[in-house]
Amino acid sequence: MAGSKYAYVRNFELPDPLLPGTFLVCRLDGHSFHRFSDEHGFSKPNDERALRVMDAAAQSVMEEYKDILLSFGESDEFSFLLRKSTQLYNRRHAKILTTLTSYFTSCYVFHWPKHFPDTPLRYPPSFDGRIVQYPSAREVRDYFAWRQVDTHINNLYNTTFWALVQQGGQSTTQAHATLKGTFSKQKHEILFSRFGINYNALPEQFKKGSVLVREIVQGKRDKKDSSRDTMAISLVHCDIIGDAFWDARPHLLVE
Amino acid sequence: MAGSKYAYVRNFELPDPLLPGTFLVCRLDGHSFHRFSDEHGFSKPNDERALRVMDAAAQSVMEEYKDILLSFGESDEFSFLLRKSTQLYNRRHAKILTTLTSYFTSCYVFHWPKHFPDTPLRYPPSFDGRIVQYPSAREVRDYFAWRQVDTHINNLYNTTFWALVQQGGQSTTQAHATLKGTFSKQKHEILFSRFGINYNALPEQFKKGSVLVREIVQGKRDKKDSSRDTMAISLVHCDIIGDAFWDARPHLLVE
Amino acid sequence: MAGSKYAYVRNFELPDPLLPGTFLVCRLDGHSFHRFSDEHGFSKPNDERALRVMDAAAQSVMEEYKDILLSFGESDEFSFLLRKSTQLYNRRHAKILTTLTSYFTSCYVFHWPKHFPDTPLRYPPSFDGRIVQYPSAREVRDYFAWRQVDTHINNLYNTTFWALVQQGGQSTTQAHATLKGTFSKQKHEILFSRFGINYNALPEQFKKGSVLVREIVQGKRDKKDSSRDTMAISLVHCDIIGDAFWDARPHLLVE
Amino acid sequence: MAGSKYAYVRNFELPDPLLPGTFLVCRLDGHSFHRFSDEHGFSKPNDERALRVMDAAAQSVMEEYKDILLSFGESDEFSFLLRKSTQLYNRRHAKILTTLTSYFTSCYVFHWPKHFPDTPLRYPPSFDGRIVQYPSAREVRDYFAWRQVDTHINNLYNTTFWALVQQGGQSTTQAHATLKGTFSKQKHEILFSRFGINYNALPEQFKKGSVLVREIVQGKRDKKDSSRDTMAISLVHCDIIGDAFWDARPHLLVE
Repeated sequence: MAGSKYAYVRNFELPDPLLPGTFLVCRLDGHSFHRFSDEHGFSKPNDERALRVMDAAAQSVMEEYKDILLSFGESDEFSFLLRKSTQLYNRRHAKILTTLTSYFTSCYVFHWPKHFPDTPLRYPPSFDGRIVQYPSAREVRDYFAWRQVDTHINNLYNTTFWALVQQGGQSTTQAHATLKGTFSKQKHEILFSRFGINYNALPEQFKKGSVLVREIVQGKRDKKDSSRDTMAISLVHCDIIGDAFWDARPHLLVE
Repeated sequence: MAGSKYAYVRNFELPDPLLPGTFLVCRLDGHSFHRFSDEHGFSKPNDERALRVMDAAAQSVMEEYKDILLSFGESDEFSFLLRKSTQLYNRRHAKILTTLTSYFTSCYVFHWPKHFPDTPLRYPPSFDGRIVQYPSAREVRDYFAWRQVDTHINNLYNTTFWALVQQGGQSTTQAHATLKGTFSKQKHEILFSRFGINYNALPEQFKKGSVLVREIVQGKRDKKDSSRDTMAISLVHCDIIGDAFWDARPHLLVE
Repeated sequence: MAGSKYAYVRNFELPDPLLPGTFLVCRLDGHSFHRFSDEHGFSKPNDERALRVMDAAAQSVMEEYKDILLSFGESDEFSFLLRKSTQLYNRRHAKILTTLTSYFTSCYVFHWPKHFPDTPLRYPPSFDGRIVQYPSAREVRDYFAWRQVDTHINNLYNTTFWALVQQGGQSTTQAHATLKGTFSKQKHEILFSRFGINYNALPEQFKKGSVLVREIVQGKRDKKDSSRDTMAISLVHCDIIGDAFWDARPHLLVE
Repeated sequence: MAGSKYAYVRNFELPDPLLPGTFLVCRLDGHSFHRFSDEHGFSKPNDERALRVMDAAAQSVMEEYKDILLSFGESDEFSFLLRKSTQLYNRRHAKILTTLTSYFTSCYVFHWPKHFPDTPLRYPPSFDGRIVQYPSAREVRDYFAWRQVDTHINNLYNTTFWALVQQGGQSTTQAHATLKGTFSKQKHEILFSRFGINYNALPEQFKKGSVLVREIVQGKRDKKDSSRDTMAISLVHCDIIGDAFWDARPHLLVE
């Protein structure tokens, strides 16, 4: 073949298998979303439309890739858990990583108009991604706990910060100064005493992030493979730090 | 901090630097574009609109990432050459790979309506990506030669194949059988004798693929850094196998 | 410093951490030991002196590297298990791998004269090594089972093979032909009926390989750290496929 | 086969090819040689016997591995250059790295008694190793320059330091203090004015390290392959920073 004298360049493509027997977590992060949220007029501290686009993109990814059992999103990031035994693309690192990142990005842009009917995209958003291998269920649970604790901390901060700015008339510099060194309890108090906001009564979506979980539909068999349960993806905004969520869904960490 | 007991999970994120002093080539490939092209009614053997969306996405990527000096596209794939000395994202593998893949994908979906005004996207397309490290200029040249030879082979095949089907009334199975084992010369003859098509007269875009190259604009200095030349991206459809292209642009492979 | 203009070459030394939370198994294999055993007159099928040098080298390695909890040797290979939580050399791959390989090799040559007092080394032997990461205890157990099954298969074959040659007067080619396609049971029969050898009565050392295990010495505290048990290395030739060995030593796989 | 139910553990052995088209440098370093040199009564600042054992081990390694074209040693370290096109062990990282490290170590222990006839080894020495990939000849030259500059700096320091201690009657603490912050010129002066030592007249072996180079033997063809030159390994103690050494041996960096 005419191309054969050049085909040796393929030898520089090195194999990159991920370690078998490990849970894979793929985390995507918005690239320069501070600017992106400004340019597209996102509400502060939380923009429901923006969160819904993220959730919709993640849902599409899970519908396409059955080995993703769970995903968790907050702000401009989303983490996907692939089952320990997944053989997706023979566990090739770059292949899995780029396919998930690309498809999520594509879905984000594709779903955008539905959730932002009056705000056309001004430029194309992008996401970076990484895959982390976790050897055991304990580490997977701690990973998701880590992200949800982060959600909580960020949301409490941002909620108080924007209350100070939007309702309290502080500049953003002043608001940062007001919050510097404060503990959770003090932020709760600022919200309540100054602005009459009961943080605990705010929507779970903001405080807990978005959990998309593949649930077993009891009593139904899979259409294609009757030895399997039917699975369905649920979107919930619940605690994933404690045991309850995981105890109710042992299939997430078994294999 | 409340999250600190979980923060250990970050230790599982391993460093992944690419080797310094190597040229980086990032190649993106459409995922299941056979189906995608069917569903969106792409003309065969080449759809100019589809090629223009690819070119537009690649152009946007090069505008955003200045260390990409050259890119080459054909069909549903595009390859990007990063300068040998690039320090983009400290040469972190996953970061570079996912950012380029994601941004290209995003641009593809973003630019789609301009090029397919009457064909809305039916579902989100995606791309996989890989990065290959090349130690020397020779290998970089051979890489791009390899891709352009591939373009030539595929286009000649597809052009003849679809002539047999669309004009010759053959089924796709028959057309494959007709072409089995034929050499280039025979395909040229089929095209010319049966269908009056002079392959050499077909558009260069189809035969050579798309070359996006960062050119030095003579006599102009960069606005931000007067020690540098102004650069501009050109889209051409020319030979990149021979020496002429490269001899005229020594800056592509120097560093 | 005078060297600083060249020091950039260190940037090509890339980090290579092993994944945290995984058991590490380092396996060493003799390089061209077929020739080495011939040149040094090893007895066939097993040479006790040669096995004792291997065991002695492995014992020295375990005395030096406390995070090795278990090792298993047969013929010219030895496998070492490092505890899951080991922080040896910050889990740097090449550092751990080369240090263990080098020290084992050094000990082998160093201990040689003690076990081969009448056979000086004719040339320097060498070993290659590799590290494999195992996410869970199950895989570690199966790894060692895999090696011990290999010991059994090889030893039964070699015992029968050399009986045919040494006592049966067959050439090596004939002996290979005699054994081709035979099952274990048939080899047992050949040994017993033709040569009066009861395979099961042969030394455990040959049939089971060498197990060096770090045992807890009950009732004694570590001299340096009184919160720890005193540990001691035992050499045994026992089954490590079944549960008994592991159930009696839960400390091997806990952490 | 009986072992097959366990053989899946081999799937955890991941491929580790080095990048084609790169020069490979393997550097070995003595492990805890400060203690080792004390325990074995090495002369200070340089022990010729100890250097000769290192050189002998490196020579043996080069005799065994023909793709090593050059090596450079100083003190307790040695660096080996493998030709860019080497296919040794299919360029598998761990295989090359451990085999060279192991064989060097073995040779060191094996050759020891010849060079230290009156000093038996008290315990087994060991070495760690690493492989670095260099894309171009420039970096290879700078690598070896970096090591030889290091030799020079260390040797000047050590020579002056031990003169202060051995002839000047200073304690080691005092000698360190005396040398703190001094430049080369000042160390030369201390040596000359206080101890009558002309540093430049000291043996090249100490100032330049050991260079083992595979030379082309002019006018002779290889016995096995008459299309090749006969090669021979030379031990020299010369400058490898400047151009002369390399210009005289273009075969080292060509391929």
